[in-house]
Amino acid sequence: MTNHVLILSARAADYARLLAESELPECVLHAATNAGDAGEWPARCPIVLADPPLIRPLLPELTALRWLQATYAGVETLTGPGLRRDYLLTNARGAFGDLMAEYVMGYLIMHERLGWQRFLAQREGRWDATWPGRVRGKTMGLVGVGSIGAEIARAAKCFGLRTLGYTRASEGCAAIDGYFHGGDLAAMATQCDYLVCSLPNTDASRGLVDAAVLAALPPHAVLVNVGRGSTVDEGALVAALQGGRLAGAVLDVFATEPLPQESPLWSLPNVLVTSHTSALSYPEDIAPIFADNYRRFVAGETLRHVVDFEQGY
Amino acid sequence: MTNHVLILSARAADYARLLAESELPECVLHAATNAGDAGEWPARCPIVLADPPLIRPLLPELTALRWLQATYAGVETLTGPGLRRDYLLTNARGAFGDLMAEYVMGYLIMHERLGWQRFLAQREGRWDATWPGRVRGKTMGLVGVGSIGAEIARAAKCFGLRTLGYTRASEGCAAIDGYFHGGDLAAMATQCDYLVCSLPNTDASRGLVDAAVLAALPPHAVLVNVGRGSTVDEGALVAALQGGRLAGAVLDVFATEPLPQESPLWSLPNVLVTSHTSALSYPEDIAPIFADNYRRFVAGETLRHVVDFEQGY
Repeated sequence: MTNHVLILSARAADYARLLAESELPECVLHAATNAGDAGEWPARCPIVLADPPLIRPLLPELTALRWLQATYAGVETLTGPGLRRDYLLTNARGAFGDLMAEYVMGYLIMHERLGWQRFLAQREGRWDATWPGRVRGKTMGLVGVGSIGAEIARAAKCFGLRTLGYTRASEGCAAIDGYFHGGDLAAMATQCDYLVCSLPNTDASRGLVDAAVLAALPPHAVLVNVGRGSTVDEGALVAALQGGRLAGAVLDVFATEPLPQESPLWSLPNVLVTSHTSALSYPEDIAPIFADNYRRFVAGETLRHVVDFEQGY
Repeated sequence: MTNHVLILSARAADYARLLAESELPECVLHAATNAGDAGEWPARCPIVLADPPLIRPLLPELTALRWLQATYAGVETLTGPGLRRDYLLTNARGAFGDLMAEYVMGYLIMHERLGWQRFLAQREGRWDATWPGRVRGKTMGLVGVGSIGAEIARAAKCFGLRTLGYTRASEGCAAIDGYFHGGDLAAMATQCDYLVCSLPNTDASRGLVDAAVLAALPPHAVLVNVGRGSTVDEGALVAALQGGRLAGAVLDVFATEPLPQESPLWSLPNVLVTSHTSALSYPEDIAPIFADNYRRFVAGETLRHVVDFEQGY
């Protein structure tokens, strides 16, 4: 039996090449970078590999759909109210931990080492030997300890940090030194030199890092957000930074993206805007996840990274 | 018996405080930030804890000297030809690996992530979502695998890099995947995405990274030097960078420091000048090394980190 697979992605050609190389059994690929080029295949493919924003408007047309593999970790585009839920949705959540661990450690080290100050000094030809700090011995609080938070925690332990984790309930990560739940996020924040958010956009995460949590952080603390912008109350964050109650923020994600020109976050000192690049979906990372799930799907086995539509991740 | 200890350091007050707290037996401290304030103590102290450049002009006056603990790892100031060698010299080489590992990984991650490009884009209010690279999977060649190189290699393995080591002879570091010796530095360089130098300034290291080694590196490679500036032929490095035969250089150390205003390294694109701050001597790191050696000295035991005057480290 032949399985027709629709690939709808900005990187469709890369996915088609990589999946052809992995020689999936009974698999025929139909790749397009936009719906207009997909022809009749949306209606005929039971299997779809797609960038969530591209596939969302096509959901009603996917009349043969049984399984959709998203190329992103965050799939709030596909789980919102009113959208169909009569198929298996899997995300790519295993693929981003490594990249985000590099991002978080790199930017925190640069913060401690005064990397930006020294970069600007160099442009003036100035030998700036100001004594830097270090991450070793600091405490990192992780808001969210899923596959991404766990990788960040693991990297943090490599550099001798203490790690605290705020989770819904689970306590399964060996790289976390202490857990917090429920109403205890502010209590965790009081102990943190760095607060690192890697939560998806769900009802439970929206606005979780609010004025009270930001106020609980010590004034020398740095906030990092690599999850979704909705986790952080941006107005409260701007107020905390402007008031000198927070040393800095490294922000990859925002309530609105691209970040609007009028946002004060663009020009606040000690805020870094990294334009949602902390962990992009590299086809060489995502294709193996699809291939593994494809083999499971045709064998009738349980897929990996199945999304719970109710929870939204 | 009372042991008089001369402390001569820019951070003398911190050392005096930290060593007083560690309650060393029979120890009387005499702290000064410059020779003029040291009074008669240079002639009367058998034990000295000192910043090498500060103590060097006093060497002839240290008539009671038996042991000198340097606050630096690099002690070429004290091992040059014509200088006395009739005492035990120990350096602080165990203290810098952690700091240098943070530095090297932080700067390499920032290179891959286009951190500087994105930082400048932000100053223009520009959402720069250029796809970044990653360090995972890359190959790091370490020129020198002493206590510092070993810590850098360990951190590199945490991020999934392949590590190659160029050493005089030893092969004792578990975090190195393959070793090179003798005339094989250029052969190692051909395999490297990053070449990281952490050598002391000795006859053997001087000019080791020359035009031939730089030419052997792939054009996408980045050179990092956290050891001593003398290891790298700066003229050849400038030529390689200007010719586009090297992607970048992260330089903490230079042939002349501070780096002279007229050096093209200040303004070459993709060169970062970090003004010899990669691993400063923090008294909280160095004082325990002195305290440990002090206890060994008074007990008649072998000291740690004894410098071989012939080898210069």
